[in-house]
This record gives sequence, structure tokens and C-alpha cells, in this order.
Amino acid sequence: MNQENFCLSERHVSSSYIRQGLQARRGHEQLIRVLLQQGKCPEEGWSEDTIELFLSELAVMDSNNFLGNCGVGEREGRVASGLVARRHYRLIHGIGRSGDIAAVQPKAAGSSLLNKITNSVVLDVLKFTGARSVSSCFVVPMATGMSLTLCFLTLRHRRPKARYILWPRIDQKSCFKSMVTAGFEPVVIENVLEGDELRTNLEEVERKIQEFGAENILLEELSVLCDKHNIPHIVNNAYGVQSSKCMHLIQQGARVGRIDAFVQSLDKNFMVPVGGAIIAGFDEKFINEISKMYPGRASASPSIDVLITLLTLGANGYKKLLAERKELYGQLAQELGTLATRHGERLLHTPHNPISLAMSLEHLQTHSSTAVTQLGSMLFTRQVSGARVVPGNGEQVVSGHKFRGFMSHADAYPHPYLNAASAIGITREDITLCMKRLEKCLKSLWKNEREEQEDLQNQTEP
Amino acid sequence: MNQENFCLSERHVSSSYIRQGLQARRGHEQLIRVLLQQGKCPEEGWSEDTIELFLSELAVMDSNNFLGNCGVGEREGRVASGLVARRHYRLIHGIGRSGDIAAVQPKAAGSSLLNKITNSVVLDVLKFTGARSVSSCFVVPMATGMSLTLCFLTLRHRRPKARYILWPRIDQKSCFKSMVTAGFEPVVIENVLEGDELRTNLEEVERKIQEFGAENILLEELSVLCDKHNIPHIVNNAYGVQSSKCMHLIQQGARVGRIDAFVQSLDKNFMVPVGGAIIAGFDEKFINEISKMYPGRASASPSIDVLITLLTLGANGYKKLLAERKELYGQLAQELGTLATRHGERLLHTPHNPISLAMSLEHLQTHSSTAVTQLGSMLFTRQVSGARVVPGNGEQVVSGHKFRGFMSHADAYPHPYLNAASAIGITREDITLCMKRLEKCLKSLWKNEREEQEDLQNQTEP
Amino acid sequence: MNQENFCLSERHVSSSYIRQGLQARRGHEQLIRVLLQQGKCPEEGWSEDTIELFLSELAVMDSNNFLGNCGVGEREGRVASGLVARRHYRLIHGIGRSGDIAAVQPKAAGSSLLNKITNSVVLDVLKFTGARSVSSCFVVPMATGMSLTLCFLTLRHRRPKARYILWPRIDQKSCFKSMVTAGFEPVVIENVLEGDELRTNLEEVERKIQEFGAENILLEELSVLCDKHNIPHIVNNAYGVQSSKCMHLIQQGARVGRIDAFVQSLDKNFMVPVGGAIIAGFDEKFINEISKMYPGRASASPSIDVLITLLTLGANGYKKLLAERKELYGQLAQELGTLATRHGERLLHTPHNPISLAMSLEHLQTHSSTAVTQLGSMLFTRQVSGARVVPGNGEQVVSGHKFRGFMSHADAYPHPYLNAASAIGITREDITLCMKRLEKCLKSLWKNEREEQEDLQNQTEP
Amino acid sequence: MNQENFCLSERHVSSSYIRQGLQARRGHEQLIRVLLQQGKCPEEGWSEDTIELFLSELAVMDSNNFLGNCGVGEREGRVASGLVARRHYRLIHGIGRSGDIAAVQPKAAGSSLLNKITNSVVLDVLKFTGARSVSSCFVVPMATGMSLTLCFLTLRHRRPKARYILWPRIDQKSCFKSMVTAGFEPVVIENVLEGDELRTNLEEVERKIQEFGAENILLEELSVLCDKHNIPHIVNNAYGVQSSKCMHLIQQGARVGRIDAFVQSLDKNFMVPVGGAIIAGFDEKFINEISKMYPGRASASPSIDVLITLLTLGANGYKKLLAERKELYGQLAQELGTLATRHGERLLHTPHNPISLAMSLEHLQTHSSTAVTQLGSMLFTRQVSGARVVPGNGEQVVSGHKFRGFMSHADAYPHPYLNAASAIGITREDITLCMKRLEKCLKSLWKNEREEQEDLQNQTEP
Repeated sequence: MNQENFCLSERHVSSSYIRQGLQARRGHEQLIRVLLQQGKCPEEGWSEDTIELFLSELAVMDSNNFLGNCGVGEREGRVASGLVARRHYRLIHGIGRSGDIAAVQPKAAGSSLLNKITNSVVLDVLKFTGARSVSSCFVVPMATGMSLTLCFLTLRHRRPKARYILWPRIDQKSCFKSMVTAGFEPVVIENVLEGDELRTNLEEVERKIQEFGAENILLEELSVLCDKHNIPHIVNNAYGVQSSKCMHLIQQGARVGRIDAFVQSLDKNFMVPVGGAIIAGFDEKFINEISKMYPGRASASPSIDVLITLLTLGANGYKKLLAERKELYGQLAQELGTLATRHGERLLHTPHNPISLAMSLEHLQTHSSTAVTQLGSMLFTRQVSGARVVPGNGEQVVSGHKFRGFMSHADAYPHPYLNAASAIGITREDITLCMKRLEKCLKSLWKNEREEQEDLQNQTEP
Repeated sequence: MNQENFCLSERHVSSSYIRQGLQARRGHEQLIRVLLQQGKCPEEGWSEDTIELFLSELAVMDSNNFLGNCGVGEREGRVASGLVARRHYRLIHGIGRSGDIAAVQPKAAGSSLLNKITNSVVLDVLKFTGARSVSSCFVVPMATGMSLTLCFLTLRHRRPKARYILWPRIDQKSCFKSMVTAGFEPVVIENVLEGDELRTNLEEVERKIQEFGAENILLEELSVLCDKHNIPHIVNNAYGVQSSKCMHLIQQGARVGRIDAFVQSLDKNFMVPVGGAIIAGFDEKFINEISKMYPGRASASPSIDVLITLLTLGANGYKKLLAERKELYGQLAQELGTLATRHGERLLHTPHNPISLAMSLEHLQTHSSTAVTQLGSMLFTRQVSGARVVPGNGEQVVSGHKFRGFMSHADAYPHPYLNAASAIGITREDITLCMKRLEKCLKSLWKNEREEQEDLQNQTEP
Repeated sequence: MNQENFCLSERHVSSSYIRQGLQARRGHEQLIRVLLQQGKCPEEGWSEDTIELFLSELAVMDSNNFLGNCGVGEREGRVASGLVARRHYRLIHGIGRSGDIAAVQPKAAGSSLLNKITNSVVLDVLKFTGARSVSSCFVVPMATGMSLTLCFLTLRHRRPKARYILWPRIDQKSCFKSMVTAGFEPVVIENVLEGDELRTNLEEVERKIQEFGAENILLEELSVLCDKHNIPHIVNNAYGVQSSKCMHLIQQGARVGRIDAFVQSLDKNFMVPVGGAIIAGFDEKFINEISKMYPGRASASPSIDVLITLLTLGANGYKKLLAERKELYGQLAQELGTLATRHGERLLHTPHNPISLAMSLEHLQTHSSTAVTQLGSMLFTRQVSGARVVPGNGEQVVSGHKFRGFMSHADAYPHPYLNAASAIGITREDITLCMKRLEKCLKSLWKNEREEQEDLQNQTEP
Repeated sequence: MNQENFCLSERHVSSSYIRQGLQARRGHEQLIRVLLQQGKCPEEGWSEDTIELFLSELAVMDSNNFLGNCGVGEREGRVASGLVARRHYRLIHGIGRSGDIAAVQPKAAGSSLLNKITNSVVLDVLKFTGARSVSSCFVVPMATGMSLTLCFLTLRHRRPKARYILWPRIDQKSCFKSMVTAGFEPVVIENVLEGDELRTNLEEVERKIQEFGAENILLEELSVLCDKHNIPHIVNNAYGVQSSKCMHLIQQGARVGRIDAFVQSLDKNFMVPVGGAIIAGFDEKFINEISKMYPGRASASPSIDVLITLLTLGANGYKKLLAERKELYGQLAQELGTLATRHGERLLHTPHNPISLAMSLEHLQTHSSTAVTQLGSMLFTRQVSGARVVPGNGEQVVSGHKFRGFMSHADAYPHPYLNAASAIGITREDITLCMKRLEKCLKSLWKNEREEQEDLQNQTEP
């Protein structure tokens, strides 16, 4: 309520109480003021009521909520269902204008403000998680893969003759498809094995650069190569915001070499529903170019989600989640290692991966060729989600390209394995439960083996 | 509650009442049954509680809501903010899998079911609004423009050598950009004037086909040309679902010629927030191909919105909205015509446009060269939204292409005009208010003119 | 947002758009201003967003929502469940203080303001529905019966020697119990039959006054008697606000005689959930006395409900509902009459009852003694709610008092009957469905009768 | 969804995923099953979605939500505002029937079930918090005071000649008024001082019993006296559920003597909004009698709130809150003691009060007679709520009775003091902030004193 209405309230309730109410209101206004002024993720999280107050203030500024509006266009933000209007806080106009997803809409000052503030807050988070010198970013309501496609399409306009993307292999369909969809031909760079770990084959990359004289590649040393050969460099940072290591590598890559844009998933890094990504970079001009490539207005839904989430958590809350994740990574490593030893397996040594871990399933596979895949479906049935079993011998055709050893990121990774990730939001209880169920499954698989063997023995005995 | 729990309830409340409660529950189940069985938009709309019951049932089936789930992957549908979880009905996993936006997710049976049902219901609507023989469609959480881009990118894989899109001019940035973003070169086909109306220049199209031997174009007669020359044909049906005329033209085009896909906006046709589109076609195989081009999971938000909306309205409710829109088109035409006459202008004769109308502003412009643009900003300030003023002399560069007479869809449309649309959801009150305010603005502009003229006269008089 | 925050927003979004947003916000503030200034039900209903904005502004003023509050009392408005907090718009402190349900709470300026405004708006409605000179009222979160008890308890303090309440019989348990609970002895005044209608027996009332020299009674002529004999007069106006006739009788009664207080149900008159009542009267002092009799703070829930509802409807919306109700009363009378005739029954002639109607069931009862009660349960099973069947021969003991002919309001009402009410919110469809189902039930009962009779005949025939 | 609909879903999504969804649904059903079967507070809290699922299942069973219902009564659970319907989960019919607040409503099986289950769950909590042998209770949507009034009114019917209530003084208006409202004359028993603590004057109680031969009194030894003299005994247990000590005293009192009913506040013990109470006792017959005294249906809102809260917390969650409260009581005692010493005051020694604590303000008052009341308003302004300052010399008339030393519970308590409570939901931060602000206020008051004294000295010096 404005000053005048507070005064009028003093007719009904004694003025000292009303004045305290007014002071309380100023507390919320003050938080909003700092946000608008600094455009940063607040240190401390906001309460739900401050957030809802802010969102309803934004909605009030959109023309579809004007009390005296009359609309005679074909896009007036009308909503048929009250359920739908409410779940979007009556912010209906989406973000951007035809021609620029970051542009301001005359009909929707509130939605436009939301868009600007969200991008500004997200930029702040990218900075404090490690990409200190990032200069621009925007939330785009598309999956990471489609966002990568948009980056590649933008680059096509800069380099009309480019045909190839050098792609250090990573077995994720979206990533591969993002290049194919954009009309490029991916050149797969097989990884090299160092101990248990797969590493980018930089010699092969340089060889391919010589061979093709071409376009797009992935981290750190790559940046230097890209810089040296003047090749655009797009980084698929997927769920890397949650790892300070990934973020520092990007920062480092941009410092010593060249990174044109890095793209990260909203849901995987910020605990929001699937559907959005952040496209960021160190050269504001190029990022703007990308934002202008999105033809049309876009859903504000992912922006609303990430804004609510970051305002709720505050910078401190988000950092706390990252610290917990890191700590639980240690716990997961320790417990998975112990369990592995107990079953004659071992924790694979992958020091460069700060999020995922894997235990070998070699011993299991030598006992039964089907046990490894069986383990996968047993875990699914027992509601352990996200623990992937990789037999290593799979073959898959993606967009016409045949991958051997699919899911293991290599033609012939030497061990079958099970992997598990300590991703943001994981809890101690998740790990405990997972270990318990995994233990049970393994025991049951070994027991069946023994029984089958005993059965076999019994049958063959006279 | 299941049978057992209803039985247990009879311990607390007498069984005849509980049995009536059970019967009532069956009423809701019955509605859901018909939906799952037929996959069609229900004749009568559902109440909010049936809809919320259905959505909460779907959410229960997603792994992030399993009571005993433990997640150790990097994508577990965790949500940091309760506000966010609730506004998405706890449906967090999005739709599709990496590699196919229409595919089923093992982790999210509920979200997958939602996706399938939504596409099925939307297909039903496309059929009963006129595209009777449409065979497949899917909701995609991207703007119409970006969805067109996706169609073009799919076509590129079918026709790797194609470079041009023949594009009968329509002055909307997104539409133009959708081709540029996809890496094609639009070949603008200027329209021809028939009376007040602009029509596609078919001769020019055929000439260009001869000239380029090329790829993509727009309605009815075009379909025949495309069929004849074996050229893919993508229709930007923008807000055409709300007009039986547009839908019948598409149906007709597919019958007598060739339409590969037609794309329509969700928000403009279904009164939901900005951010989604429907890609539909008559050849299921091609539509599947497009759905497989979207790299990655995608936001379920537009699907949820359109499903809620269609279940709320029911087929009858939606048809009623269409009928009202059509009726109000007549009213708008009549009132705008009367008002035009009163001010020395006229309603432009555009019988082929079933949604938008325009009145000339010629008389006004001859009196004052600035009055026309002034009128635009006056209407904006008076909260008349969507009524566009087109002076006709604008020039605009879009993605490097310079358009003369931008917004009028022609290099030299003979009249300045103001247009207004009778789009779905418009009310009688919108029209009344718009006419009242427009009247006032025009009066005030004429008055100022007279005053200025008098001032001038006064100054020049001795 | 305050002025400063709007200014800051201009850094992010161009100032002309922000200024339009600010103007839009003023529209909402303006509505709130008029409400606070006039304390009346607004003419036109508010939109949901204005209402929620207002409620969230109120909540911000309560100490439990102060951002810097620390609480060390035993009543701090803490809420354990987010679901609960949200459904009460974070208004947790209830209304009133120990000792006065209308008093202001220092800890809760917002809730206090809500309470004041609600009572003020409700007073306005009582005035415009007919009780023009009502001077004071308050919403109390108790059923009508318990509210009547509170009135009686207040009167006891004024008249310590009073023991009896003269009570013209009305067969509703709550009403009877309200006197017993308050510790009084009801003196039942049996009604007299005029045609089909029961009317208060005024001679009997006067006789009892002579006999007891006592205390409390019910309408119009009663008011004169009460005035003449200086007897407090409490009116149970139950669901009378929806009928201009009832309201005018109260207004008239207060003008020519004496009415100390009249009590009406919130849910039955204002379409809100069960649980509240309005205590109103023409002497502010006495109403204040009652409000001070409620020991303790009370639930704000019924006040919130009625405030939301009246702001949503506006005076015009509420009046429209009343007009529709009246119109549908006519329809119900006509259809019920026709149906009655068809089955050898008739519509009872009860011109003084503006809400309820009844059809005789005499013909049915002469054919089968059980058919009348059977009809009741058939209607229940067919989801016809509220249509009561009154056989007229029931006997019931309420708080020790035996009532003959219970539910018919008379010892020996001459006809069994079925009654139905045209109460606020009823729809044309309710009536149509009810008539259809009633028709079916009657037919089926008659058919069974005939079959049974035929069976009997067959059995007795040789 | 029922079995059939799950089967139909397998047409759209592969059956193994659907089956996992079905299994997940069973998890929720299982929780509901245990609740319905045992009628106890679940050990572990439920998630918000299980709770909402349960509430929506209940709502479906109420006739106002029947899809085919037609209503022709005057009380049909119609709701004018969607906001109101939603915030009550569409449970509109309230609880109870006219004549019994615990009775089942034919029209509202769901609301009736909710009422029964809530009372059952609350009974379980009363048992495990200490009143082990409590046999019956019900939630009543009225303040504690009004609930006490209802108990007294019930007793009046058992003892028609009773006129007095013996009342060991406790300075809370509601409590005193609850007797006056019920029409009784409270006989105030002044407390006796033992050290810093006030204790019930049992000799005086017995003397008054002799004097009046009368009716109603309050703990443990009192129970024995009541039993001995056959006097009904109602305990105002206000916020005692949160203290195991209070609950054990009640249990003990009922075991060795007589307690007819004990009444507790919902909001103060269960962190829900103001407006409800629990009436409980050891004799089911008497509690039923009280429930039958409430004339009319009543608001379900407090029942919904407490049910949601207890299901959310679970027994373990609630016990954890109690344990924290107890622990923080120790911290508050320690910190308040230290602070008191620092300012020449002391913590009053009140070992029998397990919730509230007090520090003397004697030193402060000797320095300045106004400082004590000033301190009160300073704390209010600094958003310290609930810390009451008791000067000890106040006089107040409540319902005609003059109390000397009002708020100190004694005519002449020897010290002015400030009290603070460690009530359920208090946090460590509340205490820290309170101490900090209290410190500041005291310093500032002393400083002013010194300055004023210096001023005085300066003035008098030559």
C-alpha cells in the first residue's frame, strides 16, 4: 500500500501499530531496492512472502493485468484458465520480442524487468562460482542441447563456410545431436586412456585441425589451440556450475586461450524443473548476437523458476549447497570404495572428475555375463535412480553415426562399471540408501550365481 | 484413496455416506478413463478439482516424488524452492529424452504420460477446428519462430543442397529470422495489391522456383506449386487455429497439394502464456523426424498449460470461444467502419483476413504528417493494446535485409492505417472501450490540428 | 514497490514502460483507498490479483511476518506448516484480543485492519439488502446457534433474573439448543395453521408473557409486543439476508417495535464455508457488549472468507446473485407445481416464505405408508441434496424436550410434504436436474406400488 | 487413479514405467491406510504432496464436489469465490451437525472423516505428551476462553444450582471472562508467595469451599480437594501441551483426584493460526456432553490446520520441537540471568514454571519510576514481541471486578519484572536477538538516567 493508504488505515487501527506495519513493509522494499540497484544474487535468501510480493508487483506492471486495459491485438496475454494464470503469477507475456530474446516488451514492463534481473542475478552466480570475468549471459528456455544448437547456428553466420565441429567424444545424445541439428558434421575425437581416466586427445585434435582447417572444439589446452588457430570454441558446461573446478577451468581457458560461449543446464545446476539453459560468454557482443538469433518471444517459466530459487537461497544458501555437494562427494567416494573392495571390485581412479565416481564391475562380469545389465534393472526396481551401469560393449547409432562402447565415452574402455554422481542437492541419506540397496543387489546376484553353479554341479554329478 | 482405504473409512463415518463418497470419486476416475482411452479433448470441460487430481496423480508417478527414492545421478528432479515445486505440480522432469522430445522417460512415467496425452488432445483440436486429416503433432516449448527454425533444420537433412526459402512477405521479424537462424537465405516474394488487400504473388513464386530450383514456401495454390515442383512446404499458421477459414485452407492445401508441416503458436490460439508452439503435419514420419531433431529434454510447462486449458474448456468450451470470436469480428468490423466514416476514413476491404481489420488514416495524415504516429502513442498511454498504427513509410533492417514500408507487408502500401484484431478471448467490452478511446484520440488530434492551424493563421495574419 | 524502486527499475527497462506500470499499480491502490476511506462494499467486484495484493499487504503488517522480528512470548504467530501459512495468507494472529473480539491487536496491525474493514463492509451489505438503519455488526467465527447463545449470555447480564425464552416453534436443533446451552428454559409457542402456512400464534405469545412476565421472542408484530412489555428481542435471521422480504421485516420491526439483535449465518447468505455468523443490531452499545462477551482471540478465517467474497462480487455482483435467486424461486415454484399436479399432489400455498417451497405427498402416502421416507433416501442416492421429505409423524427429543411432528414445525401439520429451497447460488440447472430426478423417483415408487398391489391381488385371487 | 486407469496408461507409456508409478502411488495409499487404521499421529511426517492428495480425496467425498450433484437446500456448500474454495481445499461443509459438533454429516462424508481423524490424531498427541489416560477430546473452532465457557455451560446443566467458580488468580482476561460469560460468579483465590514464586493458596480454597459449598477449581492438590468435595474441576491448560511437566500434572491430577475437562489452545501448542482449542477429558461421557452443547455446525478450518500440521511434523517432528523448546528454555534462563546480573538485577527463581522466565527490574525502577514502562515500549518499537514488562502497580477492572497489581497475578507482587517465554517454535536466534536488543534498551535507559542526573547536578551547582 502507498503512503496515502497507510494514512487512511490509521482511521481503523491506531497509528502506532500502523506505523510499525509501514516500517515492516519498508523492510521488504529495501530488499527489492538492493536487488534492483545491484542486480546481484542477495547474500541472504528472501522469505517466500518477499518473493511473492515482488512477483506480484512485477505482474501488476504487465498490460494483461491493467485494470483498465482493452486489448484488440492477437497477442494480449489473455488466459483461459485461472489455474494457469495463478501458477505463472499472472506473468503471461513471456520474455523478449520477436527478434531478440533479451529485448524489452512495451506491453510487459514487469516481465521485461523480470527477464533483465534474472539474467543479471545469474551472471553474478557464474562469477562467484568461478568464471570471474564472464561478461554476459542470458537464460534461454531451451534444453542445453538446443541452446548449443543456437550457438552453432550463430557461428554459422560468422563463418559461412564452416562445415565441421571437432568433438572430443562424450556419450550424451543431446550433445552430439546439437551439432547435427545445426547442420554441422561432428568430427569425433576419441579419448585416450590415462590410468582409469579418459582424457581429451589433444594431438588428435591438432591433427584434425590440420586435416580440416576447421571450426569448434572443447577444455583449457583446447582453448589455447583454438586461440592459436582462430577457431571458435563452444563449451558444453552441462552441470559444471556446481563444481568450482569446472568453473575455474573455464575462467582459465578464457584467460589463456579462447572460449566463445559456454552453455549450462538450469535444472542440473540450480535445482529447477527441466527446460532451461544459460548461454554465457566473455565477449558481450557475441552473446548478444546469439540472443538475437532466437526468433520470437519465449517462455518466461525457466527465468521465473531460477529467479525464485536464487532469491530463496541467496548467495550464501547456494554456496552452502555447493559445499555440501563437495563434502558428500568425499563420502560417496569413500563408501563406494569400501563397498567395491568388499565385492572384489575397486573404485576407479578418476581424479579429474569432481562430480561423478565409478566402481568396476569386472569381478561380477567374469562370473556372469548377464549380471551387469541385471544389476541395472534391479537398481531401477529398487528406486535407486541415476546409478548407471555401463557394460562397455554397447553399440548405438546416433544421427547416423555408430558409436562402439556407447555410454563409456570410448570404443573400448577396459572395464565394465557402475557410476554414481554427487550432484547438487544430494543428501547423506541418498548415499546411505543407495549403498544399502546396491549391497543387497550385489549379494543377491552373487548368490544366484552360486546357486546356478551349484545347480549345474548337481546336475553334472552322477 | 483405494478400495481398502474406503473400507477403513467406514470405521469412522457411516458406510452409506462413505459409499456415496466412493461413487463420487468414481465420477472423476471415469472422466480420466475416457481421456486415457480416447486421447481426445473431452466434450465438456472438467472442473478444477478433477484437473488437479489428475495432475497430482501424474506427479505421484515421477521418481522425484517416490517416497522411497534415492537419487545418485546428476539429474534427479530435485527442487530447491517449494514455490517452484508447487507451481509445476511437482512435475519436474520435463518432457522427452535426449534425442527425442516425444520419447518416454523411464524416471518420469507421469510426465511422459502427460506429454503423450497433451499431444493427443491437441491433435484432436486441430482436427475438429478444420485440419481433419492431420496425422501427427507435438507441443514444443519454443516460440513459433524457433519451431519453424527446427522444421527448416530438419529439412536441411533431407535436402542437404537447399539454400533458399521462397517467402511471400509478411512483416513479422520472428518469421523472417526463423529462416535466417536456420542458415537459409530467404527470397522475399513481394505481395500484390487487390483492392485494399495484399495477396501472394503466385506468378512471382513460380518465376523464383524456375530461377532457383529451390525449397520452401506458403497457402493453397502454393501447395499445388510445391507438389508440382516437389518442394517442401512449411506453413506458419501463427494464430490460425482460431479461424476455421485458416484451418480449412490448410486441410485443402494438404488435400490438393503439399504441406509438410504447419506450425502454430500456443499462446495465440489457446490463451496460455507465451512460450510454446505446435508442430503438426499430415505425414507422421516427417513430424517424428522433427521431434527427434530437438536435442535434449524440454520444459513441460507449455504442455501442462495447454492440457489444463483444454481440459478446463472442453471441446464445447473451446468451440464456444471460437464462435464468440467470429461474432465479435463482425461487431468490430461494423463499429470500426462507422467510426471511420465519422472521421472521413473507411474500413479497408480485406475479406480474406478473418481475424484482423483495418481502417484507413489517410484523411488524418493529409492534415498532419505526425498525427498518425502520435495516434499510436496516444492509444498506448490510454491502455489500448494491440491496436497497431501503420504509417506505411517505415524502413527497417532485419537480419541484414532492408524492408521498405515495414509493418505494412508491402514496399508501398497505398494507405496509412490502424489495425485491430478480433482474436480469441476478445470481449464485447474490449471493443466498446477501444472504440471510445479511439474516438477520443481522433477528436483530440483533429482539435489540435485545428488549433495549430488557427495559431498559424493568427501568426501569419497582419 | 515504492517510488524509489520504480525509479531504480528504469535502469533496466525503459522509463515510459515503467511509468505505465506505476500507473497500473496506482489503479489497484486507488481501489484500496476507496475501500479504506468509505469502508463499504465496492460497487464493482475486484479482480483476484487486487484482492491478493491487498491481503499480502495486510500480512506484511503483522509482527509474525516482520523480517527482523524476534518473539519470546507464548503467542507469536509461528506456523509449523507452509501449507497452513499460505492458505491463511500468513495472517496468523486471528482477530480481537482477550476480552473483545472487535479490539485491535498491537502485534497484528494487518489482521486488526482486516477485522475492522470486514465488519464495516458487512454492515454496508446489511444496509443495502434492507436493514437500512442497522448501526453496528461484527463477524464472529461461530455457528449461528452458538452466536445466538452469546447474545443470550449477554442478555443474562442485563437481566440477571430472567429464566425463560418465549420461542415460536421452528424445528431446527441448533436454534433450540442455543437457548438451552445458554442456560435458559425455552417456552415453545406452537404455531397456528392459516391455509397451508404456519404463522406465529401472537395471542399465545401474549398469554405466555402474562404467565411468565419474561424475556425473549421472534417477527414484526412480536417487535411491538416486545417493545410494549420491555422484553429483549433476538431474531434468528438464519439465511434471511438473501431475501429482501426478511430484511425489510427486520427493518420494519426495529422501526415500529424492538429488536435487540439479529443473527445470520455467513455460509448460508454469503456462499462461504461453514463456520461464521454476523451479529447485528440497531443499538451500537448492545452489540459492543456482545462483542466483549467473547472471551479470547478468535479465528480470522470466516472474516477473510467473507471479505474475499464480497470484494470479488462487489455490491453489484451480490445484488445480481440475489436477483437471480428470486427469479429462480419463481421458476422452482412453477416447475414444482406442475410436477405435483402430474402426480396428484399440489404445491403448498405459503406466500410468506420467500425462499422455501413445498409440495404435498398426501396421495403418495395414502398409497404406501413407507413411500414417503423411501423417497427421501432415493433422492439422497441420486445426489439430490437439500430436498427434505417431511412425513409429519416423527417424534424427536431435543435437549430433553419432546417434539411431535418434528421437522414440520407443528405438532400435527396436516400433510406430509417435500420441500426445496431457492437459496443464493442456486442455478437453473439445479432445478432442472432436481425435477428430472424427482419425477423418476416418484414414477418408480408408484410403479412398485402398483406391482405390489398386483402381487397382492394375484395372491388373493383364487 | 484406479487400477483400470493405470492399465489404460500402459497404452501411452511402457508398462514397466507405469507399474513403477502404480507402486509409488501405493506408497501414499499405505500411509493413508495406517492413519485410517490406527487413528494416530504418524511417527514420521508426511510430505506436502501426500497431505494434499489426502485432503483432495476427502474433498471429493463431499456433496458440494459431486460432479452430478444438484442442490435445492439452503445449505449446499456453494462457494462464490475460487480463492476461498481453494484455500479450504474445497472442504466447505464444516464439521458437526446442528446439535453435535462431533457428529457425522450425510452431505459431507469427507469433512466428517476429516473431523473424526483430526480428533483421533490430537488425542494421540495428548497421550504421548503426558496425559496417558485421556479418553476423549475434540477440536473446537473457538478460542480457549470461549471453550472454557462451553465447559461451564455444560456443567450448569449438571448442577443447576451452582453459582460460583473458585478461581486461583491468573491475570488473563479471557480466562476470567470465560466464567463471567457463562453466567457464573468467579471467586478469586489470591495466590501466596513462596520465594519469588506465586502458588495456589490451598487453605484459602478449602475455606471458600466451606464458605460456599460450591463448584469449579484448578492443579493436582486441587484435584484431590475436588474429588473429596465432589466438585467439578476444569483445567485451563492454555499452552501446557508443549510442557511434559504440565501434562504429567494433569495425568497425575486425574489419577489421584478429579479433573472433569482440560482445555488447551491450538495455536499456542501446535503452531497454527489463532482460533481453535482442544477440549479433553478422562470421562468420555462428559466430553460428549460438551460436544453436544455446541449449537450448530462449526468451522473446519482449525481442524484442517492442526491435521495438516501434525501430519507434516509426525510424532517425531513434534517431539523434536518439544525437546528443542525445553533446551532453549535452559539457554534463555542462562542468558537472561547473566544479563540481569550485569544490570544489577536477578533472574527470579520460579522452578515450577517450565515455560516462562522473569528478571527483576527493581534496580531500574529505583533509579527512575518511568523507566520500567518505557522499557516496554522500547522493546515493542525494536520488534521484540512477547517480552512483557510488569511494573506491578497496575490496576484493572475486568467484567466489573477490580484487580490490583494486574498482570502480576497478585495484589502486591514484591518486584517489577520483565518476562519472556521459551514457547514451542522459538529459535536460538530469537533469544540472541532479544538479549542483544534488551541489553541496548537497558543501557540506553541507564544512560539517560545518568545524563538527567548530571543535568540536575549541573543545574544545582553554582
